[in-house]
Amino acid sequence: MPTAVVVDVLRATSTIAQALAAGYRRVLCCAEIEEAWALRERLGEGVLAGERRAAAIPGFDLGNSPREFLEPRGDTLILSTTNGTRAIVAAAANAGTVLAGSLLNLDAVVRAAREAGSDVEVVCAGVEGRFTLDDAYCAGRIAELLGGERSDAAEAAVRVARSFGSALEGLRASENPLHEKLGEDVDWCARESVLTVVPRLAGMDGSATEIVV
Amino acid sequence: MPTAVVVDVLRATSTIAQALAAGYRRVLCCAEIEEAWALRERLGEGVLAGERRAAAIPGFDLGNSPREFLEPRGDTLILSTTNGTRAIVAAAANAGTVLAGSLLNLDAVVRAAREAGSDVEVVCAGVEGRFTLDDAYCAGRIAELLGGERSDAAEAAVRVARSFGSALEGLRASENPLHEKLGEDVDWCARESVLTVVPRLAGMDGSATEIVV
Repeated sequence: MPTAVVVDVLRATSTIAQALAAGYRRVLCCAEIEEAWALRERLGEGVLAGERRAAAIPGFDLGNSPREFLEPRGDTLILSTTNGTRAIVAAAANAGTVLAGSLLNLDAVVRAAREAGSDVEVVCAGVEGRFTLDDAYCAGRIAELLGGERSDAAEAAVRVARSFGSALEGLRASENPLHEKLGEDVDWCARESVLTVVPRLAGMDGSATEIVV
Repeated sequence: MPTAVVVDVLRATSTIAQALAAGYRRVLCCAEIEEAWALRERLGEGVLAGERRAAAIPGFDLGNSPREFLEPRGDTLILSTTNGTRAIVAAAANAGTVLAGSLLNLDAVVRAAREAGSDVEVVCAGVEGRFTLDDAYCAGRIAELLGGERSDAAEAAVRVARSFGSALEGLRASENPLHEKLGEDVDWCARESVLTVVPRLAGMDGSATEIVV
């Protein structure tokens, strides 16, 4: 079974890394809003956070900006986002180890993926199933630092990443109009290796994936 | 409906361009070998050609090297290849105009796609559903010459293509082990804009796509 590194650099996997670094003990990722509500009901605890198309979800405690997760508001974060959460749920079905990768924890996640000792597959969340340059940039940085033999797709991602002068340029390159709503989050998420946490999939809680460090 | 440019630069779409330039009047593309046999039986004519995993198909008249199509052996070519033919069949379901693109007819296909006046989608055949650098190189050249607004995927392909020093370098970059069997075909297919034909989908003949100029 390969090791999967899921990337939704703007913003779900950056937010997961930031939340766990700040002190949340686990992040429960739900693909659907209704699952997030039901999970908090069942657990009797949990901070509800997430977004749909870069907008806040009515009734939730927090959005999906990593800057909202500098201090923990509880032990459990219940997160539902448009693309990243769904990619983690999907990756869990096909990989042995599932890690959440971002630029924030770049070095740490590369080291952990290398130590897992199997082939590494970087899974880009994209937007509604489509390829995006921001995730490809992050995937290319991961593949470049991993070294070893590369698939054609990994080699292409490395070449795309190298074509940008900086991480910020790579993250800003997407034509996704929703990115204009992200403001300073893009600058925040473009910082490389400022966190040492390696979020990893611990298991499933019903249909939700439990991510811990 | 978008205009689709299908690319299987090594070798199906290069072979289709070469065959039509040489004087074949139409190429009937079949996804399956059995369909090719049945089609010739029904038509009572046709040169059978193609490959599976870069090897000749037993009983067929020709393989899938463009260098086998310098002179026509008849009016109708019936072609079945591993990836390219299937990509054309699939593209036919989702596009208005379907063109076959390669480096051999690069300028001509770009001009025809631009004149079609709608969005252009470059469909890379890849290998068994997977991304390949050779098709991405060709797609990037097409997107670069087309100009206009680019999707994230098109922009990435342009950046990948620019990262290579030459077309031959781009076509040789794939890790696909089958490419070692292609010999001088790689050099042949790396020549840009030496043909002016624009193979286009004329319609279906049963489950086969009919390609003409």
